[in-house]
Amino acid sequence: MTKADVASTKDPVYREAVIDLLGALAYGELVAFERLASDAALAPTLPDKSALSAMATAEYRHFLALRDRLVEMGVDSYLAMEPFREPLDEFHSKTKPNDWLEGLVKAYVGDGIGIDFYREIAAYVDPSTRALVTSVCDDMGQSDFIVDRVRAAIDEDPRVAGRLALWGRRLVGEAVSQAQRVAAERDALSALLVGGVGRPSADLAEIGRMFGRLTENHTRRMAELGLAA
Amino acid sequence: MTKADVASTKDPVYREAVIDLLGALAYGELVAFERLASDAALAPTLPDKSALSAMATAEYRHFLALRDRLVEMGVDSYLAMEPFREPLDEFHSKTKPNDWLEGLVKAYVGDGIGIDFYREIAAYVDPSTRALVTSVCDDMGQSDFIVDRVRAAIDEDPRVAGRLALWGRRLVGEAVSQAQRVAAERDALSALLVGGVGRPSADLAEIGRMFGRLTENHTRRMAELGLAA
Repeated sequence: MTKADVASTKDPVYREAVIDLLGALAYGELVAFERLASDAALAPTLPDKSALSAMATAEYRHFLALRDRLVEMGVDSYLAMEPFREPLDEFHSKTKPNDWLEGLVKAYVGDGIGIDFYREIAAYVDPSTRALVTSVCDDMGQSDFIVDRVRAAIDEDPRVAGRLALWGRRLVGEAVSQAQRVAAERDALSALLVGGVGRPSADLAEIGRMFGRLTENHTRRMAELGLAA
Repeated sequence: MTKADVASTKDPVYREAVIDLLGALAYGELVAFERLASDAALAPTLPDKSALSAMATAEYRHFLALRDRLVEMGVDSYLAMEPFREPLDEFHSKTKPNDWLEGLVKAYVGDGIGIDFYREIAAYVDPSTRALVTSVCDDMGQSDFIVDRVRAAIDEDPRVAGRLALWGRRLVGEAVSQAQRVAAERDALSALLVGGVGRPSADLAEIGRMFGRLTENHTRRMAELGLAA
């Protein structure tokens, strides 16, 4: 972290917002690691198990990087994660895959929205945080194998597509509902995105456009899997 | 892999034995990853969850190194793992921890016996395989935090020690029983250790001493945890 960044994170409201952001992302990665590793147990073959496990270990690397950044900021990293345990745990407990294919779709959709969201927020944070967020992004996207697996399953039994499309909608619905809860409870974090903390931030129209982009990319990814969004 | 190693692995019986060895270790690491990641869900705190997850991701790294070595040898790596799925899966299904402390003891005992076993077999393999086995060893041993956790739990409730000591004995018993099964079914692998494949190998007395050392180290590790072996 450079001295300039220390200065920028001295603004207490901004600092609080960044701590929230990193805490939310860190816990999100830790629990994603745990869920993906657990879903890997559903894999029908060893190569599949290995591929989903690889995604899980990538999440753990991101968790470490985010946690270390919090420590570098002089923060109790685990305390920073606490406010996000309940919403993220609830998201995962409500979206526990019933089988391997649901696990794959969840991994693919989650990985994709994750990358998109990291890239969007990179615009609103200080250079050090941005560098971290960007390096996490670069380490994501190990989910290409999922496209083949889901498409092959649909080829074999086209009825699978309807069920998985519904599943994809449920994933997004639960994610949005938990995100709204976080936004309502964490003022500084919301202010970072919608402005009001005395630094470049998004106005409401830009927030609207951001959600538009996230939705559009999600729709594209579902189509890649052969699914209606 | 150097040319000399390729030559040494041209001996078909030795080659078969090394493939078995790497296949067994690789599947062992993959399933250890999965089990440790799953046991991390039992963690009472986030730092604990993170520490056990770190051990899990190390196992996955070892899995990758072993798998890549099989591929380098021109082997279908996943096929090489197949014969060891049943015994290793059975070991884990019979030793599913009932709580966080049992998970910790299993991780500590497993990590320790793993390192010991890797070091012992390093003596009987060609230089490339030895280098791989040694590098895996060097990446192990991230289990020091477990000593504190188990000792603290015993301080708080001394009755825990008896239960966990029994648990440790059960782990070893199940491991020995699956190892015997593998030894009975995989001739080349057994021959690698007890000799008969025309290269330096251990005689039965040395095998006896090896098990003596493994048992001694296990007893020492249980004592470190405050447990009778």
